[in-house]
Amino acid sequence: MYESDAGLLAPGRAGSPAEATTGDSAFLQAMLDAEAALTRAQSACGLAPAEAGRAVTETADAGRFDVRDLALRARSGGNPVIPLVVDLMAAVPEDARPYVHRGATSQDILDTAAMLVASRTLATVLDDLERAAAEVARHAATHRDTQMAGRTLTQHAVPTTFGLKAAGWRALILDARDRLTAVRASLPAQLGGAAGTLAAFSAFSAPAAREDTEEQEEVDLLALVAAYARELGLAEPLLPWHTLRTPIADLAGALAFTAGALGKMAADVLTLSRTEIGEVEEEEGGDSSALPHKSNPVHATLIAAAARRAPGLAATLYGSLAAEDERPAGAWHAEWEPLRDLLRLVGGAARDGAALAAGLRVVPYAMRENLQLTDGLIVSERLAAVFADRIGRARAREVLAAAAERAHSETTDLSDVLFDVLREEPELAGLDLAELTDPTRYTGSAGPLTDRALERR
Amino acid sequence: MYESDAGLLAPGRAGSPAEATTGDSAFLQAMLDAEAALTRAQSACGLAPAEAGRAVTETADAGRFDVRDLALRARSGGNPVIPLVVDLMAAVPEDARPYVHRGATSQDILDTAAMLVASRTLATVLDDLERAAAEVARHAATHRDTQMAGRTLTQHAVPTTFGLKAAGWRALILDARDRLTAVRASLPAQLGGAAGTLAAFSAFSAPAAREDTEEQEEVDLLALVAAYARELGLAEPLLPWHTLRTPIADLAGALAFTAGALGKMAADVLTLSRTEIGEVEEEEGGDSSALPHKSNPVHATLIAAAARRAPGLAATLYGSLAAEDERPAGAWHAEWEPLRDLLRLVGGAARDGAALAAGLRVVPYAMRENLQLTDGLIVSERLAAVFADRIGRARAREVLAAAAERAHSETTDLSDVLFDVLREEPELAGLDLAELTDPTRYTGSAGPLTDRALERR
Amino acid sequence: MYESDAGLLAPGRAGSPAEATTGDSAFLQAMLDAEAALTRAQSACGLAPAEAGRAVTETADAGRFDVRDLALRARSGGNPVIPLVVDLMAAVPEDARPYVHRGATSQDILDTAAMLVASRTLATVLDDLERAAAEVARHAATHRDTQMAGRTLTQHAVPTTFGLKAAGWRALILDARDRLTAVRASLPAQLGGAAGTLAAFSAFSAPAAREDTEEQEEVDLLALVAAYARELGLAEPLLPWHTLRTPIADLAGALAFTAGALGKMAADVLTLSRTEIGEVEEEEGGDSSALPHKSNPVHATLIAAAARRAPGLAATLYGSLAAEDERPAGAWHAEWEPLRDLLRLVGGAARDGAALAAGLRVVPYAMRENLQLTDGLIVSERLAAVFADRIGRARAREVLAAAAERAHSETTDLSDVLFDVLREEPELAGLDLAELTDPTRYTGSAGPLTDRALERR
Amino acid sequence: MYESDAGLLAPGRAGSPAEATTGDSAFLQAMLDAEAALTRAQSACGLAPAEAGRAVTETADAGRFDVRDLALRARSGGNPVIPLVVDLMAAVPEDARPYVHRGATSQDILDTAAMLVASRTLATVLDDLERAAAEVARHAATHRDTQMAGRTLTQHAVPTTFGLKAAGWRALILDARDRLTAVRASLPAQLGGAAGTLAAFSAFSAPAAREDTEEQEEVDLLALVAAYARELGLAEPLLPWHTLRTPIADLAGALAFTAGALGKMAADVLTLSRTEIGEVEEEEGGDSSALPHKSNPVHATLIAAAARRAPGLAATLYGSLAAEDERPAGAWHAEWEPLRDLLRLVGGAARDGAALAAGLRVVPYAMRENLQLTDGLIVSERLAAVFADRIGRARAREVLAAAAERAHSETTDLSDVLFDVLREEPELAGLDLAELTDPTRYTGSAGPLTDRALERR
Repeated sequence: MYESDAGLLAPGRAGSPAEATTGDSAFLQAMLDAEAALTRAQSACGLAPAEAGRAVTETADAGRFDVRDLALRARSGGNPVIPLVVDLMAAVPEDARPYVHRGATSQDILDTAAMLVASRTLATVLDDLERAAAEVARHAATHRDTQMAGRTLTQHAVPTTFGLKAAGWRALILDARDRLTAVRASLPAQLGGAAGTLAAFSAFSAPAAREDTEEQEEVDLLALVAAYARELGLAEPLLPWHTLRTPIADLAGALAFTAGALGKMAADVLTLSRTEIGEVEEEEGGDSSALPHKSNPVHATLIAAAARRAPGLAATLYGSLAAEDERPAGAWHAEWEPLRDLLRLVGGAARDGAALAAGLRVVPYAMRENLQLTDGLIVSERLAAVFADRIGRARAREVLAAAAERAHSETTDLSDVLFDVLREEPELAGLDLAELTDPTRYTGSAGPLTDRALERR
Repeated sequence: MYESDAGLLAPGRAGSPAEATTGDSAFLQAMLDAEAALTRAQSACGLAPAEAGRAVTETADAGRFDVRDLALRARSGGNPVIPLVVDLMAAVPEDARPYVHRGATSQDILDTAAMLVASRTLATVLDDLERAAAEVARHAATHRDTQMAGRTLTQHAVPTTFGLKAAGWRALILDARDRLTAVRASLPAQLGGAAGTLAAFSAFSAPAAREDTEEQEEVDLLALVAAYARELGLAEPLLPWHTLRTPIADLAGALAFTAGALGKMAADVLTLSRTEIGEVEEEEGGDSSALPHKSNPVHATLIAAAARRAPGLAATLYGSLAAEDERPAGAWHAEWEPLRDLLRLVGGAARDGAALAAGLRVVPYAMRENLQLTDGLIVSERLAAVFADRIGRARAREVLAAAAERAHSETTDLSDVLFDVLREEPELAGLDLAELTDPTRYTGSAGPLTDRALERR
Repeated sequence: MYESDAGLLAPGRAGSPAEATTGDSAFLQAMLDAEAALTRAQSACGLAPAEAGRAVTETADAGRFDVRDLALRARSGGNPVIPLVVDLMAAVPEDARPYVHRGATSQDILDTAAMLVASRTLATVLDDLERAAAEVARHAATHRDTQMAGRTLTQHAVPTTFGLKAAGWRALILDARDRLTAVRASLPAQLGGAAGTLAAFSAFSAPAAREDTEEQEEVDLLALVAAYARELGLAEPLLPWHTLRTPIADLAGALAFTAGALGKMAADVLTLSRTEIGEVEEEEGGDSSALPHKSNPVHATLIAAAARRAPGLAATLYGSLAAEDERPAGAWHAEWEPLRDLLRLVGGAARDGAALAAGLRVVPYAMRENLQLTDGLIVSERLAAVFADRIGRARAREVLAAAAERAHSETTDLSDVLFDVLREEPELAGLDLAELTDPTRYTGSAGPLTDRALERR
Repeated sequence: MYESDAGLLAPGRAGSPAEATTGDSAFLQAMLDAEAALTRAQSACGLAPAEAGRAVTETADAGRFDVRDLALRARSGGNPVIPLVVDLMAAVPEDARPYVHRGATSQDILDTAAMLVASRTLATVLDDLERAAAEVARHAATHRDTQMAGRTLTQHAVPTTFGLKAAGWRALILDARDRLTAVRASLPAQLGGAAGTLAAFSAFSAPAAREDTEEQEEVDLLALVAAYARELGLAEPLLPWHTLRTPIADLAGALAFTAGALGKMAADVLTLSRTEIGEVEEEEGGDSSALPHKSNPVHATLIAAAARRAPGLAATLYGSLAAEDERPAGAWHAEWEPLRDLLRLVGGAARDGAALAAGLRVVPYAMRENLQLTDGLIVSERLAAVFADRIGRARAREVLAAAAERAHSETTDLSDVLFDVLREEPELAGLDLAELTDPTRYTGSAGPLTDRALERR
């Protein structure tokens, strides 16, 4: 028995909409859709009988073809379109046969199919991103003023709010949405024939048509491309793009971006849900095979894994831009699986991102507790600033360093130590220490920034 | 003596405009520009005396600072802004000292500097891309109807034109230009303070200001960010983006795309200038240390090398999207050199691309000669199509395969063999073999496609 | 219906031995093998009844389990072992149930399964590499003295032999074999329990055993690991390696190397089989969907595609070395599919490499013809050397450059021009021009180098 | 003024030994060393006067040459050896001039220089790795029995020891050392001439030598290669490896491995030194530009950044294996800077790794405190096992889940809840709850594993 993959090593995507739109059957259907659209377009342009378009369209159903057999027969020519055309010709009524794949090259069909698959998959990804953005917006609004420790290089720095953090997650998700939306709208059909000149499409035309001037013929072929793109709901390409791989590179960039954008949220959730931090947790944490008590941040973990994998796949796709000749030996073939993998990873990550955001439990109490962990040092920046205004930057730093050292060695709160300090520094007299050392009073413009970020639609 | 790099291993970029805009001195100047703009913006917003902005601006000249010393002192804090602030404070008049770097975090300055460097470098890259596109357009127009072999999977497939090929190169270059232009226009200033809340900017404000309501303060800080961005000629960010790395990822994608886009042209030139093909050559081919006769396609080689390196660098930058916390421990630091390397690689490749295009010698004679190499087989697609119209696809394939076999074994031209064939196939009588087997009559819509592509501005 | 993959986008691996050893069923079987070995090892160490080991082993047959169902249920815990343990427990006789997965963590099983899959796959890869090396050795021996143009930076440089080129291909293939063989021999079993301390294995032990001193207990557990590894035919690990990923990184490196090593041969074949060069061809070239005459270098193309993809996958695996804690959230999960993809790519490439080498048709005639293409310039290095011995390097270069220029402009052979030159340069009198300009007399140590390289076993 | 790099963006490597051994001057010196060794080897083999070897050696001092000028002149031929040979010839006495670079190609010199640079750099890297390993071994021995929480998927799982963790770090460092040592010992000299046949070395030989039979000549040239390698202290290559890039790929793999191996330690330190965890800290933490109190884990941060960058660079080098022809147009050129970058990143990371290990402060108190954070749940695995032995796995899980739930909702310790539970489950009577719920009594074989791992030398 041959070995198919059912997603056993891919919990990130198993059962996701993106899995359904990217599987071998989905690709096969998309190739058939491309073939059918091509015949229909030729019918529409008078290059084939109207009946041929209908006949091919009716036959172009993935369920009729043996995907494994096609996969094996793809080896001899190096791509699956070659055996598919044979089988499709055998499956259509005899009258339609001459109009199957007529004038096209394998890459016309496979590239177009990839664009259809990408378009269909991105539709589901965009849905999930919208859901994720909405859920994250909810958290940002709810926790606009929920103070927490701002952390830099792993250490508490100054206070921030969970609202601002969530607003940042949303900003990235919307950035991803905007990039994917723009790329999706520009996905082009592919049609060029063997070397991108469209020559074969005219070679096949009826002798009658041959009487036309060359000029007219040529115009007709550009119209054929337009008709083909229209049939498919894809953009009309300015040129055949067999070795002008802008659409693939644009997908690579936007997908790698999306994986990373979701990966930022996941990285934060993984940190904040650590046992020692406990500021957020996934509502439905994952099981453990060994440990009855554990609740693992599984959604975040799977997103993090996707974010680690996407850049290497995108790199391969960018590398295929440098494709020689009219159609290359390897650069093209190296795109198929990485592009699908990226679509799947991002599809899975978007689903997990929406689920993560929807089920995220925020624990303001833990945030407040953690904010006290440094015994007031988290506001030392503020104290340094206020002191500096009075006694100069250098002296302020000295005073604070000494106080921090004392607080640390006596394991007492900075504000207690400072009470003594202020008595020794007359210029600092009269400062309201309680307010100055209250972390919750030092979140700057976190609120307005959150508001402004949430205004973005 | 410390070891500086002078470009010995980087002929692609040595002496290029992008080298000048990305060197350590250029980065140092950009950091100083950021510091000066910050103080000026604070002056403008009433957070610092007007004089402070002027004083810092006057001092902010890279020539005054020791870049190597800064590099070494950068180690203790992990970034070069920390020692730079010390030195800058020491260099400004005492009155201005409190207003140096006031409220900012290292990353505010380094990120902003990176955006300035990127913006300045992209200006030169865009110039070179425009030049390259213009030169390539010239070739496309000149050779609109210059026939050559279209090659797929390394083999002659059907004829095409050099015009169409050059039009394709131009399309990619314009795609790169459009992407870089869009990214350049969106490069944002960075300002957030220690954890992105802008809190310190208010902490420093004078006690008088502290009487203001919180609301007003906050609005002022967003105005400060706007003023800072304006001073720098950069976009105003919606949020501090210390760990929302859209600008870096957008640069990564657009730069990797550009390297690949130029890499496509280089790949074709490397193929077409092979000794056996000889259809193009670089006007000023490179020397060889060993061989007096050789003229190497050096521009294309250096571009090809850049195209091989860019994807891995972009992958690292995409990988840094998943940055934890308010400022991360490693993800940010991993961006600096790869971003600069990408700017340099693309800067060098754009310069080489313009030079390559300007100095490309096209050899129509060789193109014509090569077109004959397969003794007519290069138009077999056309014959298959025309024959199929008369005797069906399967029979046409058979007839042609037999003829090709005979032509191959007898090392004679396909048209000669076909002359006999036509006598045996009455349905094929009357076909104009001379025309049908003329490669130069089978370039389809290459001309109109070229025209249409050249209309794009 | 769910979407499984049948290899439609993967002609490189479809139907290959590596596909069979890496599919979801193969992974599932390997996980079951690991579970069975674990229970048997516990039986052997007195931690479980002997019957339990037998019972689990009998049940551990992938055919009994529903791989798709496992894939879907893997989502909740983030890996497929968790639902598998549930199903395996349900499938074994009740007495054996307590001894299923006892003490282990999911990663123990999945990592061990990955090592089994790798070991089984590498066995087939090594077979194909040996076949490829033998076929290439045959070419090298046959063509030890078959002269051809040596090409550098795409241009003819000096002559070489096909024997030396093929000997180089073989050297790389043997390097790959050696690296894979070494890695395969070191693939370790994984056993550590939840956090790599093996603690649970003692927790489960019978109360009687608990009387033992801790020392003894601990020694027993290391023995358990050894027994487990023995059962599996894998190496015994010095430490649990849940986050010490040397085995994965070693696989990544050796597999990326192998893809590239085969990629070198493919790159040469793609170049040498170009229509204009024609020095080699694939015996069973691939079909084209559009072109009846074409014979594409399909094996080389598929290998080239694999070589383009492997580095990005290896990069992801190297990136997972930096895995935090005792078991990481994402770094581990990011390894599974890239490791499998690498095994498949290399498995396919090794198969194609063997087929390519076996079916490679070498065309000495074309090599000889091409060697003449530069009208003698290909030996200019030799002339420069010989002339330099007599008239100095600078003067020799001058004389030759002038001669080459004249040969070029008069489109005559360099040796003809040189005949005149020699009359004007008395120091050069008496040189045997016929021999000096004969490319076939200037292959240096190509022969002995080939011989020496072929001695390697 | 041209723009050199002084390490401003590279705190990881600034001032490191690896920086000194990889700078442009170091590369220039290595190229000169290669040239000198070549002439000396020719002297030794009777292909040049003894004096020539001495003269070139004396002149081959990087200080005499203008590295920036060479960099700029490298552009025309695409590599720096071409102008260097010109300058070196001008600098040696006239008698020696004919023996400079005689018979060699640029790549012979540049590849050999890269091997010298790699060898010299790895010597310093290996020193730092040994230091790091020794320091880590000290921690492992000291803290063999220091219990701490074992963490998986970011959550407390079961206890482990810091000794075992440190022993794991050491294992990776030793793995890196072993791989680098093996690669270093195999770094080969490069010598092949224009196309790897060594032909030019015989072309130059004196007429007398020409009388020899061909056989002898050829043997001599292999001896020349051996002599050259000996002069350099590098391995003798079996074949010229201009396009057989095993040495580069082996370096790529071993260096990427080393970066990741150190990256694991850094990842753990970054986690464990988080403000909330506080189990380790860097003795000399880094400054912050904004925050007087912060002590950042700077060494770990810089290592983490290196670990993020290394895989992408290694991927580029693996990608260059597929190099066409006798010397390639781009694949080779794409290696230079990434190889240097990898050496520098790893050199810096090794230095930082040694410093990090030497200055790591371990806080057993915090480890003990954190171990209590889950109120006993961290030993739930043990309880599940012991209970399962008495009441079956399923019932044990139930009982524990209920107890954990109750402990959680009542915020009481699990052991208190269990005291009640045991009264209700007669089969569980008599268990020593105090011992069973003591995390410090559940570290399994952590001790013996640590001991065994430390025995490795």
